[in-house]
Amino acid sequence: MMHYPLLMKSILYRANTLYPNQEIVSRDYDGLFRYTYRDLHRRVCQLANALAALGVQPGTNVASFAWNNHRHLELYFGVPCAGRVLHTVNIRLFPEQIVYTINHAEDQVLFVDPDLLPAIEQLLPHLTTVKTVVALCARDQLPAHHIPNLVVYEELLAAQSDVYEFPEFDEYTPAIIAYTSATTGNPKGVVYTHRGLYLHCLVGLTSELGIRDTDVTMPIVPMFHVNAWGRPFIATWAGAKQVYPGARPTPQVFCELIEGERVTMSAGVPTIWMGILHEYRTKPGGYDFSSIRALLSGGAALPLALVKAFDEIGVNIYQGYGQTETTPVTFIGYPKASERNLPKAEELRYRVKTGLLLPGLEMRLVDMDGKDVPFDGQTMGELWLRGPWVIESYYKSPEQTAEAFVDGWFRTGDIAVMDPDGYLQITDRTKDLIKSGGEWISSVDLENAIMGHPDVAEAAVIGVPHPKWQERPLACVLLRPEAVGRVSAEDIRQYLEDKVAKWWIPDQIAFVEEIPKTSVGKFSKRTLRELFDQGKISAS
Amino acid sequence: MMHYPLLMKSILYRANTLYPNQEIVSRDYDGLFRYTYRDLHRRVCQLANALAALGVQPGTNVASFAWNNHRHLELYFGVPCAGRVLHTVNIRLFPEQIVYTINHAEDQVLFVDPDLLPAIEQLLPHLTTVKTVVALCARDQLPAHHIPNLVVYEELLAAQSDVYEFPEFDEYTPAIIAYTSATTGNPKGVVYTHRGLYLHCLVGLTSELGIRDTDVTMPIVPMFHVNAWGRPFIATWAGAKQVYPGARPTPQVFCELIEGERVTMSAGVPTIWMGILHEYRTKPGGYDFSSIRALLSGGAALPLALVKAFDEIGVNIYQGYGQTETTPVTFIGYPKASERNLPKAEELRYRVKTGLLLPGLEMRLVDMDGKDVPFDGQTMGELWLRGPWVIESYYKSPEQTAEAFVDGWFRTGDIAVMDPDGYLQITDRTKDLIKSGGEWISSVDLENAIMGHPDVAEAAVIGVPHPKWQERPLACVLLRPEAVGRVSAEDIRQYLEDKVAKWWIPDQIAFVEEIPKTSVGKFSKRTLRELFDQGKISAS
Repeated sequence: MMHYPLLMKSILYRANTLYPNQEIVSRDYDGLFRYTYRDLHRRVCQLANALAALGVQPGTNVASFAWNNHRHLELYFGVPCAGRVLHTVNIRLFPEQIVYTINHAEDQVLFVDPDLLPAIEQLLPHLTTVKTVVALCARDQLPAHHIPNLVVYEELLAAQSDVYEFPEFDEYTPAIIAYTSATTGNPKGVVYTHRGLYLHCLVGLTSELGIRDTDVTMPIVPMFHVNAWGRPFIATWAGAKQVYPGARPTPQVFCELIEGERVTMSAGVPTIWMGILHEYRTKPGGYDFSSIRALLSGGAALPLALVKAFDEIGVNIYQGYGQTETTPVTFIGYPKASERNLPKAEELRYRVKTGLLLPGLEMRLVDMDGKDVPFDGQTMGELWLRGPWVIESYYKSPEQTAEAFVDGWFRTGDIAVMDPDGYLQITDRTKDLIKSGGEWISSVDLENAIMGHPDVAEAAVIGVPHPKWQERPLACVLLRPEAVGRVSAEDIRQYLEDKVAKWWIPDQIAFVEEIPKTSVGKFSKRTLRELFDQGKISAS
Repeated sequence: MMHYPLLMKSILYRANTLYPNQEIVSRDYDGLFRYTYRDLHRRVCQLANALAALGVQPGTNVASFAWNNHRHLELYFGVPCAGRVLHTVNIRLFPEQIVYTINHAEDQVLFVDPDLLPAIEQLLPHLTTVKTVVALCARDQLPAHHIPNLVVYEELLAAQSDVYEFPEFDEYTPAIIAYTSATTGNPKGVVYTHRGLYLHCLVGLTSELGIRDTDVTMPIVPMFHVNAWGRPFIATWAGAKQVYPGARPTPQVFCELIEGERVTMSAGVPTIWMGILHEYRTKPGGYDFSSIRALLSGGAALPLALVKAFDEIGVNIYQGYGQTETTPVTFIGYPKASERNLPKAEELRYRVKTGLLLPGLEMRLVDMDGKDVPFDGQTMGELWLRGPWVIESYYKSPEQTAEAFVDGWFRTGDIAVMDPDGYLQITDRTKDLIKSGGEWISSVDLENAIMGHPDVAEAAVIGVPHPKWQERPLACVLLRPEAVGRVSAEDIRQYLEDKVAKWWIPDQIAFVEEIPKTSVGKFSKRTLRELFDQGKISAS
């Protein structure tokens, strides 16, 4: 076989050759902008020429600081296909983290959406490697600013030839860099190679949920979040119509674009879908969502209630799973043929499973001794992954690399069980597991069991040190107001007796007045552990 | 990204892990045999162990001489995944060609279906490298024979452990070898690497025509023809149910399996589909073909009449295009979204186009000066291809390699035009083109124009030497019986005047009593050229 490298330029090539007249719609600052793949290709060529004109050498990193729009799409192709590397800066990071990631990546050029220029202007004195800032707009869209030698993107492109011969290079060449938003410490850099992105996106064309040329796709997940899950690339490869929601989009914007552009597929996090559902229900008569064939939810577990709510308005929503380290998608919660014949209520339950491993990947579930556990639907193990779009190291971070990668496998840090028929279910994070007497107790499963008690409003379970068992579960329980004083720890324990293994039942139950939450509304187990360490939680 | 090789074992891994209970049906010598992907995996492990037991070293070639059945499927996986190479011998070659290919590939073991043992027994004295013959059956299915030390496949497997650790190796490692059936000279060997097959088959999961786990696939194209177009691998990757039609299948066998096993997709050559259509129409009440969602036709141009005939019985048939050198599929005649909204009659016309280039491939149309021609739907060029599943050389054949490969491109030898909107149409073979005054005339287009004349039954056009124009077309015309003597060469030329370019109109037209055909029913232009050279065709 030819030694023909797997490069991102293949994706653009096919769209330009077979689908030159297919449409791309982008919500620009002054309305909807429309052009075609032929136009995209032409402007990507101009951008590639412009990079050379800006003095950006092949292999050099440049950064985007931008929303989901057509100019960001041009950067997605133009920078990697020209052999440079695009660092998609997460605009939601804290300012000091933004500075850290740009300096760590040594970005030389910064492509910034005009409404984000003020934020960058503030940080500019701290950016040690950036030589040029480019505003992603036309001259008349430029806000007032004090950035020296600011380049206007539309003028930059207009000055360049739209003929460009995309170079050929090794498929392991870096294409995109992203940073994980770590809960502690500095963000960790993740480098996506051409090969990795190519294979991830090719798999995005497969199965019933693969994007096709009949589709109209709208990535809601930001393009600064793990390549917008690859959707812009996959849609381009398919020759699909694409819709970009632009700057500071609201649920109303999403709903209007779905209705107006006849969107068939979209991807985003559960909170976005909740907002869209709320907007749909709030508007008298709702919106016309009849064009949708599949919504893809990821980034956090997809609640069954949300699946059911969308099902009631005739919309199918499915779950994807992955990490920044895995490009990101590794599992899709799409019921197999055998499960699609089930009654609706049962079929929906398969949609909230973490799902089926994508073609090309390998998985293990590993216990605390490093041994594989069986795929029996019961035995928990940490999910380890490997495959062509899983990274093998963090960018310039040998210590963090050594923690997360073992024998060629990536340790996800998620605990899961696997059905004999291939469905994975994430049950917990490694750090939230309770390690008791050489066995694991899932804090999430135990919480769900306790919250099944009719008098319990919320319950969060953490592991606390135990002299004999190493750790034992401590359940922090928020009772419903009317039950306070009436329900005892013993009542809870009795309730659990036929619901979980005997040794899972918490010895310690603390009735609390509030369960602390993280900024995204999850139980903050770190705060609970701190409170316990400080003696501020007492259990019975 | 991980340096994780693209190996065929990934395909089997996923089927065994996610679809262990999915069914494989194989028409064995004594009825339908059924087992699952779990069973397939187990037996592939036994086979891999058996190869070592037979003394077959990694990197060594072994051969199959077999029909489409489950044991052949086991060889498809077991041999390459164990790091050996499977030569799928074409059982339809002439005996001396079979001997040539087996000796050329230096096959050490020959896996033979029991009903084909007599053929091999005849050839065995001429096979210089074969050490062991294995009969692909159980002991009680074995016919009488005189092959020394014949091994029985079922006994070979039964003696082996079903635990096997598939090795990891470079993705450019050979997996399968096939030979093209050349019209002149010896067959040319083509080596498929793990990487090439992997990527070809991954693309087979994409688009509306991609195999999915809801599908029931039956490869009719033989497994000794270019990997059965990859269908056994693609179906396994998808977790689809598979049906294998076994030895010496007839149209009736195909129809009964489609109906009985609820086949959704199948692949074969046009003559097979004609046979199936005839069988369908012959049987009172027909067969139940309602399960079919797509038939794939390849190997020769798909006639519009056949598409229409299948459409009338509610069956969709599509065209694939490719060569042995391209693993094989490179184009699919699947209408784009924009063409699928056309009225049925127009949509069907897009199905008989050669189709759309698959993701990952690159194409050129090159004129006789080696220059690219525009994609304008009119200008002809030779189709050149490159991509990850296009070979870069013939096996141990440097001279034939030098002819077919130029600057990293594979010259298909087919002449085509490409629409501005991406549809390719093959118009001729390079060798059948008429090169007239520095321009090309398509013999096929000219034949079709002449055959549009109501008094013409058949017409074949060849190029004949011309002192000024290098070549000019000679049309050999078979008139309908009632028109003989009534229609003149001048009538034909007048008829063509508003149908083809003036300089295409043949100066010489020969009325013949018969147009010689090849064994597969095509006009034999080689015979016509010989007859012309011998002065046996006279034109006016």
